[in-house]
Amino acid sequence: MRRNVTTNITEMQKPKLKNPIMVVGLPGVGNVGRMAAGYLIEGLEATKFAELNSSHFMPFVLLQKGAAVHVINNEFYYWRAEKAGQRDLVILIGDSQSIDPEGHYEISDAILQYAKGIGVTEILTLAGLGVGQKKDKPKVVGVVNDASVTKKYKDSGMDFSEGDRVGTIVGAAGLLIGFGRKHGIDGMCILGETSGVPLIPDPKAAEEVLKVLVRMLKVKVDMSRIQKKVKETEAFLKRVETVQQNAVMQMIKQQMPEAAKKDEKELTYIG
Amino acid sequence: MRRNVTTNITEMQKPKLKNPIMVVGLPGVGNVGRMAAGYLIEGLEATKFAELNSSHFMPFVLLQKGAAVHVINNEFYYWRAEKAGQRDLVILIGDSQSIDPEGHYEISDAILQYAKGIGVTEILTLAGLGVGQKKDKPKVVGVVNDASVTKKYKDSGMDFSEGDRVGTIVGAAGLLIGFGRKHGIDGMCILGETSGVPLIPDPKAAEEVLKVLVRMLKVKVDMSRIQKKVKETEAFLKRVETVQQNAVMQMIKQQMPEAAKKDEKELTYIG
Amino acid sequence: MRRNVTTNITEMQKPKLKNPIMVVGLPGVGNVGRMAAGYLIEGLEATKFAELNSSHFMPFVLLQKGAAVHVINNEFYYWRAEKAGQRDLVILIGDSQSIDPEGHYEISDAILQYAKGIGVTEILTLAGLGVGQKKDKPKVVGVVNDASVTKKYKDSGMDFSEGDRVGTIVGAAGLLIGFGRKHGIDGMCILGETSGVPLIPDPKAAEEVLKVLVRMLKVKVDMSRIQKKVKETEAFLKRVETVQQNAVMQMIKQQMPEAAKKDEKELTYIG
Amino acid sequence: MRRNVTTNITEMQKPKLKNPIMVVGLPGVGNVGRMAAGYLIEGLEATKFAELNSSHFMPFVLLQKGAAVHVINNEFYYWRAEKAGQRDLVILIGDSQSIDPEGHYEISDAILQYAKGIGVTEILTLAGLGVGQKKDKPKVVGVVNDASVTKKYKDSGMDFSEGDRVGTIVGAAGLLIGFGRKHGIDGMCILGETSGVPLIPDPKAAEEVLKVLVRMLKVKVDMSRIQKKVKETEAFLKRVETVQQNAVMQMIKQQMPEAAKKDEKELTYIG
Repeated sequence: MRRNVTTNITEMQKPKLKNPIMVVGLPGVGNVGRMAAGYLIEGLEATKFAELNSSHFMPFVLLQKGAAVHVINNEFYYWRAEKAGQRDLVILIGDSQSIDPEGHYEISDAILQYAKGIGVTEILTLAGLGVGQKKDKPKVVGVVNDASVTKKYKDSGMDFSEGDRVGTIVGAAGLLIGFGRKHGIDGMCILGETSGVPLIPDPKAAEEVLKVLVRMLKVKVDMSRIQKKVKETEAFLKRVETVQQNAVMQMIKQQMPEAAKKDEKELTYIG
Repeated sequence: MRRNVTTNITEMQKPKLKNPIMVVGLPGVGNVGRMAAGYLIEGLEATKFAELNSSHFMPFVLLQKGAAVHVINNEFYYWRAEKAGQRDLVILIGDSQSIDPEGHYEISDAILQYAKGIGVTEILTLAGLGVGQKKDKPKVVGVVNDASVTKKYKDSGMDFSEGDRVGTIVGAAGLLIGFGRKHGIDGMCILGETSGVPLIPDPKAAEEVLKVLVRMLKVKVDMSRIQKKVKETEAFLKRVETVQQNAVMQMIKQQMPEAAKKDEKELTYIG
Repeated sequence: MRRNVTTNITEMQKPKLKNPIMVVGLPGVGNVGRMAAGYLIEGLEATKFAELNSSHFMPFVLLQKGAAVHVINNEFYYWRAEKAGQRDLVILIGDSQSIDPEGHYEISDAILQYAKGIGVTEILTLAGLGVGQKKDKPKVVGVVNDASVTKKYKDSGMDFSEGDRVGTIVGAAGLLIGFGRKHGIDGMCILGETSGVPLIPDPKAAEEVLKVLVRMLKVKVDMSRIQKKVKETEAFLKRVETVQQNAVMQMIKQQMPEAAKKDEKELTYIG
Repeated sequence: MRRNVTTNITEMQKPKLKNPIMVVGLPGVGNVGRMAAGYLIEGLEATKFAELNSSHFMPFVLLQKGAAVHVINNEFYYWRAEKAGQRDLVILIGDSQSIDPEGHYEISDAILQYAKGIGVTEILTLAGLGVGQKKDKPKVVGVVNDASVTKKYKDSGMDFSEGDRVGTIVGAAGLLIGFGRKHGIDGMCILGETSGVPLIPDPKAAEEVLKVLVRMLKVKVDMSRIQKKVKETEAFLKRVETVQQNAVMQMIKQQMPEAAKKDEKELTYIG
């Protein structure tokens, strides 16, 4: 009997979608991508249809007052085009990315295989671009997996000349479009400038990314609804951050009890 | 020839069980879950029928005076209902949980698949809830994997409104009920309040959990026998803790001899 | 295309052996097990017939003056019984054990499966027992995987009552006999008392283990030849230790260049 | 659904090659191997025909001004013999080696299996040999996987007597020739003396290795073109190094936000 859970996608429904674009927003710098995807799901009232679980996420469940336990996951939503010029959408959002390097490859591959299976021909990943300082008017920068993609979106108002400033994109936002090319899937990463502190959510940058995205996808999103969601998201993210830290600390203590005790003592000397 | 041992369950017997509930007590905060499960096994004189081994446990064997070597493992016990209102039980107890994040997923999956195979339809995991201070009368808190489970046990005296105080459940106690839902298995985690120091066993909290459990399962346990067992358990756990630390240190020294030597020198300066 | 090299055993010959005992000596505390196995191979002029490679060993090759590159491995030797009362032997020796916890399980399983395939019905693992100080007359302690094994060797002069002093056996020496039981293989770990510094080889303790082993196996080993071998082994082990440290350092530097530079600077301050 | 991406080789073309020699230059000490292989590709105008991706590389994509995203990879090039005495060549070059010990085994195995499939019967790996100081005239040292290989290249001007000074070869450069032997593939590692700081590229040592290589392979390379390439390579490598450090830091921050914050604070005290 051999077991390796690794990465699983479970479908609640099998929506028939026509040539969908997949939008991906996972945790990262300033949480820009995750928040922008959340606002899009909220604004379009998209429908959840599948979940991704992975052995590469933190091994714990989250709890909220009166609610059932929630296993850390990524979730797929869909939205159907309502008029000409629009396209069906798949939106992938999540609590977490892989906590180890290998998992980023495995999860990105699982997502790509699944996306291909449901007909996705284009992927837009959303992310933050750390620029070291807060900006009143954050720019939105685009990088592509093929020169032809740039042409398609040349009127979106994005800056496509900043690749070397970006330098590197860590995790799924980069790998999905990098490997997407090998599957014949057009890909772009849309990055909103943010100060760059990873876990201080930057809703302003997320809003700028959303504005560009809405223009590209030719969809309408009620921005006043978004404002309310921004507040809720911030509170939730702060919570996840705290429990994640506590969980990491708890795991460390269980495995290295002496180290933990020593650490506590040392912390006392500092305070 | 490729090998990955990962997680195996070996059966010593194949008991036919009728719609059993599985109770799970593994090491964790205050060792509350493990001890409560141990008292239940002792009190019911349950019978061992299967063992779980995993590459995600510490790679060593334990030794005791005059005894054969014991490989670190988790063990399944069963107990048959003796009168109306009771249900057959499977009790899972163990020396260890996974020492790496991925292993928690793999082991939880192995347990769930096996539990389903022997007919388990409900899982009760036992754990400690760190509250930062010792309490004279520790509360017992319940969190569920589906709202319907709360109703079933509304008279158990547990507090079901504390989910947000719990925040997160690390390891098998959380994942078993979180993923249990996906297998159609009702799940609840029963948490006994404890001060929260991971490796100082809290037999008082374990006793409170046991009392709630006994009421839920409508079984009788001789509490005076338990008192004796509490003492033995504490001595054994202290021993495991010490050898585990020594083993970790030995592994580190083997791999990084210079680091170890440096460490020893530094320790001398401290003392 | 998916690949996982993990653990492979390559056979150079397929010797037909009659009911062999397997003796295992791998690196560990005081290098006692490895040295004792080496002396036995030397003394019996045993023949190499198989090699074990693993992704869980350090990823490098060793070089010696004028010789071809040597991949880190474990090696199987055999020796045929020459007279009544003796048994055919398989001797497993090696440069390394797993460098990560999971690998210990995988490698032990690979060895056990292979041992079973070639008819092994009994395993004797050799190891050091750290006692914190040098002893003029180191004792040899035995621990077993089944009470019946103790009886068989009750006249060997080993102390079988010290299990709780041993406490734990890390790595293959423990797992091979622990899991051996599940395969119906009798197992014993023979531990020579040593000061306990992992990488200072203790040839004296190795010799004591060898003396017990020779008595158990009813074989003759020319001890004067061994003395010469002791010297060579020590020089080789010292070399392996040095290159292993350099290799670890080189890997760290490649992956974390800045950390390495910082480290070098700090080392300068110390010196 | 189980997934493990691990290591994949994707072919863009399937060139028919006659008994090719494979030359391998991957990042390492002084980047000597990678640069020498790069100069050879440039000098021979070799053609790219396959790519290797691995879950054991850093999980990010690289970006350059105006270019599409580049997934970290290793690349295979070929060059056909143009006159008698020459042999077809396969040249393997890459951005990265495995970032964990196990990956070195997996990637080396993937390369060897692939090399065998396209008919490779000999492997020359290129690497740097750290000697602790800069040398005006760096020597080139050869180590082999079989004594017969030394004979074949006895007129190449390499020093084959320095194995014990080399001591150990970490990663693919060592494993490819070490395991190559088991596949019946002749192997040699050609090491250029360099000061030994891993990430300060040493183009001088790379040039010395190239000179020996050109003599062995009986090929002509325009050295003036190489000089220009040297400059470009240095700039690119410096860039990769910087983004790699930033990426590592970003991953650490995402996983351990508190640790990162603490680190920032401490850095401030230092500055």
